[in-house]
Amino acid sequence: MVIHDLTAAECHETLSRSGIGRLACARDNVPYVVPIYFVYEPDHLYGFTTVGQKIEWMRLNPRVCVEVDDIKDHTSWTSIVISGRYEELPDTPEYEAERRQAQMLLEKRFLWWQTAHAAEQLRRPDSKPSPTVFYCIHIEETTGRRAAPDAIEAAGFASPPTSARSTPRRRRSRLPS
Amino acid sequence: MVIHDLTAAECHETLSRSGIGRLACARDNVPYVVPIYFVYEPDHLYGFTTVGQKIEWMRLNPRVCVEVDDIKDHTSWTSIVISGRYEELPDTPEYEAERRQAQMLLEKRFLWWQTAHAAEQLRRPDSKPSPTVFYCIHIEETTGRRAAPDAIEAAGFASPPTSARSTPRRRRSRLPS
Repeated sequence: MVIHDLTAAECHETLSRSGIGRLACARDNVPYVVPIYFVYEPDHLYGFTTVGQKIEWMRLNPRVCVEVDDIKDHTSWTSIVISGRYEELPDTPEYEAERRQAQMLLEKRFLWWQTAHAAEQLRRPDSKPSPTVFYCIHIEETTGRRAAPDAIEAAGFASPPTSARSTPRRRRSRLPS
Repeated sequence: MVIHDLTAAECHETLSRSGIGRLACARDNVPYVVPIYFVYEPDHLYGFTTVGQKIEWMRLNPRVCVEVDDIKDHTSWTSIVISGRYEELPDTPEYEAERRQAQMLLEKRFLWWQTAHAAEQLRRPDSKPSPTVFYCIHIEETTGRRAAPDAIEAAGFASPPTSARSTPRRRRSRLPS
């Protein structure tokens, strides 16, 4: 397996294609992580959600970390880690332009939004719509790594040779990263 | 979309099948999240990794959160969130039994371990093996949710009716969870 750090351009390309990540936040030094849908723009992620634990925690502590990956198998994967800062986009005049921008990008990417919302209204015509929060993650740092099979793995190396099989247990536990 | 909370038995079944999760830790109230391989046993996750930022952070603050999911599409997904505590399993007599148990379970699940390690040794016969850390996450709380298409979605509901299309923008932004 060959691992290399992603360039800024490679991170940009991966984040532009992806739309699902895992967002971690923290309260009193206790972490919490959940999946999110997002749209990437240079220096920003835009997302939406209903009010819940992660929103409550991010309102108290805006420091967040988002991980985005594409894992095919143990020798072929990409993982990007973003450190950033949460900012809510409330439905107020001050945020109108950015909220509209976020909504437009998210609707363009996730076409099922409007369909799902309309279906929800059909099902529950008298119910109050679920309150949705639009937010922005201001990206402060992005790091990425990509693994690919090396020549031995690509050639179909399948089982360890006798000498490796007889390696003491303690050494065998030292696995490659 | 119909969402229900998973029972303990459903969480157990999902975690037993899965082997990849996203682990979040925190330092000074700053979260960090990365993908991990794990094996689930009731009340525990066992994992392995090389020394890096997450190990350094978990040594300082053992509170962790692990998210495990299976996302098919926006109406069909399962997500489990585990709160727990990190414990390293060092290569010392005190931890020998638990470390052996962890290693046995991980090797059974991730057959590529030994193969990958042997290949690494062939490639770099004179190099020092990467130091590997075995660890256990003691599970303190597990919650899970599963979404499935409802009758309308399952029947192929494709586009919002005119009345929904004419819903004002502000209401359209209130998306279902």
